[in-house]
Amino acid sequence: MSSIKMFEKPLGMRDTFPQIFEKVEAVRQTGRSFLRSRGYEFIKTPTVEYFDTVGKASAISDAHLFKLVDSQGNTLVLRPDMTTPIARIATSKLLKEMIPLRLAYFANVFRAQETEGGRPAEFDQMGIELIGDHSVFADAEVIVTAMELLQQFGLKDFKVTIGHAGVLNCILQDYTESIEQEDTLRTLLVQRNYVGFEEAVASFDLPKTKSDALLQFIDEAMNLKEIQDIEKYVRKNDALEYMQRLAKLLEVADLADYVAFDFTLSSHMSYYTGMLFEVFASGSGFPLGNGGRYDGLLNVFGSKVGATGFSIRVDRLLEILAGQSVMKEEAVVVLFEEADFESALEKVQVLRAVGKQTTLQMRSSLVDEAAFIAQFSEVVVIGQEEVCCE
Amino acid sequence: MSSIKMFEKPLGMRDTFPQIFEKVEAVRQTGRSFLRSRGYEFIKTPTVEYFDTVGKASAISDAHLFKLVDSQGNTLVLRPDMTTPIARIATSKLLKEMIPLRLAYFANVFRAQETEGGRPAEFDQMGIELIGDHSVFADAEVIVTAMELLQQFGLKDFKVTIGHAGVLNCILQDYTESIEQEDTLRTLLVQRNYVGFEEAVASFDLPKTKSDALLQFIDEAMNLKEIQDIEKYVRKNDALEYMQRLAKLLEVADLADYVAFDFTLSSHMSYYTGMLFEVFASGSGFPLGNGGRYDGLLNVFGSKVGATGFSIRVDRLLEILAGQSVMKEEAVVVLFEEADFESALEKVQVLRAVGKQTTLQMRSSLVDEAAFIAQFSEVVVIGQEEVCCE
Repeated sequence: MSSIKMFEKPLGMRDTFPQIFEKVEAVRQTGRSFLRSRGYEFIKTPTVEYFDTVGKASAISDAHLFKLVDSQGNTLVLRPDMTTPIARIATSKLLKEMIPLRLAYFANVFRAQETEGGRPAEFDQMGIELIGDHSVFADAEVIVTAMELLQQFGLKDFKVTIGHAGVLNCILQDYTESIEQEDTLRTLLVQRNYVGFEEAVASFDLPKTKSDALLQFIDEAMNLKEIQDIEKYVRKNDALEYMQRLAKLLEVADLADYVAFDFTLSSHMSYYTGMLFEVFASGSGFPLGNGGRYDGLLNVFGSKVGATGFSIRVDRLLEILAGQSVMKEEAVVVLFEEADFESALEKVQVLRAVGKQTTLQMRSSLVDEAAFIAQFSEVVVIGQEEVCCE
Repeated sequence: MSSIKMFEKPLGMRDTFPQIFEKVEAVRQTGRSFLRSRGYEFIKTPTVEYFDTVGKASAISDAHLFKLVDSQGNTLVLRPDMTTPIARIATSKLLKEMIPLRLAYFANVFRAQETEGGRPAEFDQMGIELIGDHSVFADAEVIVTAMELLQQFGLKDFKVTIGHAGVLNCILQDYTESIEQEDTLRTLLVQRNYVGFEEAVASFDLPKTKSDALLQFIDEAMNLKEIQDIEKYVRKNDALEYMQRLAKLLEVADLADYVAFDFTLSSHMSYYTGMLFEVFASGSGFPLGNGGRYDGLLNVFGSKVGATGFSIRVDRLLEILAGQSVMKEEAVVVLFEEADFESALEKVQVLRAVGKQTTLQMRSSLVDEAAFIAQFSEVVVIGQEEVCCE
């Protein structure tokens, strides 16, 4: 491929320079310490998995998978998410004892990009999985943990919108007249194509009561403050009752102010079988994170236990936190002439002993001394009178 | 590939469970804090690079590269090392200002495995690169930093063996009679096949003075306490003089006790053009880390500046540290009955406020309560008399 220049990177791949690295690290440390304080344990999974196991189960479309072939001819993938590998581990190893698992991760995931559109092909996710608990308390714990995690980062202005696959299914079933119509509308909701939704409803030639209900639903059900506001659209059913209980728990946890219900919420992640939610921060057009119950995924791996979790996109979190300033550390450089190595070494040892970040640099190796020392808050020159500048 | 079972991972790929994860994390934190205190800044590079840039320059053999093809038909690789991507960055971006760069990383790298021989296909490396300084002081800094890093982990019993590609070249040139003979012997040294070396020398039909010198060299030059012990094998040359200066600096830094010289040292990394070294800890048959000067690699990227660095294998470091015990954190679980959610929430808030790692768990979700609570050092049950056990 002679068209590739020496310094190019594959589409969507990025370098992370020191300043950004330290911001990511600060997020990682804050998140780790918070999630561990809640009893979540961090794990790591391989970057590369079999297509036939994690690749197929992951619900990321084929076009966005990085695929490779091993020496035995097996197709491999770079992990497109962390939920699927963790489901593999939970089912194969940890659940023999049938006790709930609380697992956490901070990991890079991969989505192949076909054009240079600014979308990253590799990005960090931080999240948790609570596996082995069917109860509404587990879902409440996950949502509360997501919100408290954001608060740890100093975020105040965010919103969690919660939906339920079962409630949506019930509404689509009741107001359409075939499974095809249901599927068409669900796909349009996944795409958030609300104009398309209205056009599709018009084209179905439904009885007016049904089409009116669907149009009103799409208009009103996206940002409900109170759970009872959905009751006029949907007959009594388990999913609705579940959501009523969940809403109560969030009230008890004193987080209802951050919550709205969005019953149009539908995910391309087909394994979200129950409650699902998205987190938005003001100042970002994309969801900062999302989560939900995915008992269906555990089923793929042959397990009947419940599972729920969430993840946040670290790059989007950093964009939102960008306004906040990061303290630059004090950094010292000790410059020395060749003959003064020993006394320079003594000097840096003294500085490092009092906790200063100290660089040792032979002076004559510098082509542009001014540019080099401009990086430091303190410059010590050995072999002359010691000089401190800036 | 119906032969793949649902829970399998590709050859050499591993999961990292919480206990190991926290050990890796402790190493990462200690290393980061130490290297930053020395003025090294952490960066991250993409997992995926072009084969034509980083893949070819990396000096890892084709058979050990993970290769994939993007939608444009370009061949990509999973990074096989960190030195090459950092050389790409340094040359393309950061060296325009011609000031020395001190960069550090903690990153996973990839080596494809063809058989399940226990060798990992993905492992963590921690290391530094000092780019833009030709001087012997830069090499001394890298060796000293490697040793002090190991001391940070509490390692006392380790050895650094240092060689020089130029000194070895000089010896091989002087005592053989063709470039082919030279290359054969160099390859055998890379493989550490000393029996093969002796057999090859015998087969070359050299004058007795030369073959005797080579056999004595291979016998004696592998563990020299004093740099002058090599002088009888090698005529005066720049490389030898360089090593004499380096030896003096290490004496000044008071680390000569940890150092031996091994002039048979040769690397499959063809970009090591000058000084090179390996770090061994007692209790491990494999080198814990290695490093050296690689001006040749910067040359590949079109830059003439000097570069030197080292990396350690985190998995091997953990094996060596395995003897040392890790404090298990105190962990509390609060169990509650459905009706007592609110008071359970109050209880965990109190515990977390005093810094305890606290898990909240609804009791009736537990299939095996005894197994679950066995994980915690303290169990609080809400809705009964509060009970603390174990």
